[in-house]
Amino acid sequence: MINGRLDRQITFILELDKLKHVLRQSILLDKSRRENDTEHSWHLAMMAVVLREYAAEDVDLLRVMEMVLVHDIVEIDAGDTFLYDQTANQDKHKRELAAADRIFNLLPPDQAGKIRALWEEFESGDTPASRFARALDRLEPILLNFYTQGQMWRERGVTIDTARKRNQQVIDSGSPELGEFVRKLFDEAEEKGYMAE
Amino acid sequence: MINGRLDRQITFILELDKLKHVLRQSILLDKSRRENDTEHSWHLAMMAVVLREYAAEDVDLLRVMEMVLVHDIVEIDAGDTFLYDQTANQDKHKRELAAADRIFNLLPPDQAGKIRALWEEFESGDTPASRFARALDRLEPILLNFYTQGQMWRERGVTIDTARKRNQQVIDSGSPELGEFVRKLFDEAEEKGYMAE
Repeated sequence: MINGRLDRQITFILELDKLKHVLRQSILLDKSRRENDTEHSWHLAMMAVVLREYAAEDVDLLRVMEMVLVHDIVEIDAGDTFLYDQTANQDKHKRELAAADRIFNLLPPDQAGKIRALWEEFESGDTPASRFARALDRLEPILLNFYTQGQMWRERGVTIDTARKRNQQVIDSGSPELGEFVRKLFDEAEEKGYMAE
Repeated sequence: MINGRLDRQITFILELDKLKHVLRQSILLDKSRRENDTEHSWHLAMMAVVLREYAAEDVDLLRVMEMVLVHDIVEIDAGDTFLYDQTANQDKHKRELAAADRIFNLLPPDQAGKIRALWEEFESGDTPASRFARALDRLEPILLNFYTQGQMWRERGVTIDTARKRNQQVIDSGSPELGEFVRKLFDEAEEKGYMAE
């Protein structure tokens, strides 16, 4: 019915629908339910458009947007790994590598390679664009948690020390100004009792 | 606590969370529930990355991605208007204009203008990038409907003639090759009884 290349591209696009079912730990601002990976990824892409001026170095906005849109696709197979779950984070990379092999290779080889490179760049954090993308990826759940009065932080036992340790440096290195913003947000969260004891 | 500019940007970013609650008519491929606007927008952006080679003319991928990410934001206030609902489509533009005024102006003026220009370009369909973005916006629900055996088409009384009339030309004009693909998909949908009588 259709040529082989378009057939593979459509197969990949249909596979992506599954990411709408992968739930994260963060709850939406109205506290009605948890956020899923595609909602989170869309929100990050919009944050990239709006907050780009705060990137530590001049970044290619297209590259940042492609990275944030792609970065969670491996979770279709590997599931969402809670940032503060040390056990699950131990084999996270192995699970995600297997997922990348299966899912990206649904695409024609040239595109599989391109998407894989985006994912690997995001994971490595060794370019200005990926450091900024990673900063946004940490900032979004902090905003959701802060503006729901830390409900998830308290339920999951996340203390202010842990939250700072897992996030502050990543955000500082992608964007000193957003890092400064988050530092103040954490101060206020601690003061208001939003964090676990 | 933070400077006025960043304050407005964060206010806009928090406002965007509401788009995760705006439901569309399409159902997800596993038929478990309806899709929301942010899931749809993320899916379109990924389709832009993967299907860009089929654009009728050479398009700026960043522009296409920004347009598809932004195009439904007005629905936070205006709600999703079903493509096949003629009554609701009559005052759609008026409702969406009021929404654009309120929501985009949460941002600093320079960025409000930028986001508004993206939305207006998408709505107008008078550039190659916006015609391609609009083609993707029509293709995604057709894929979801076709691969759920037309459940929504039949439930909502969408006939093959209506579906072709509302979609074929929009897709052809953004991408002749995707138009050809959709033409065959509609043929198959009709043959298999996926459409309403």
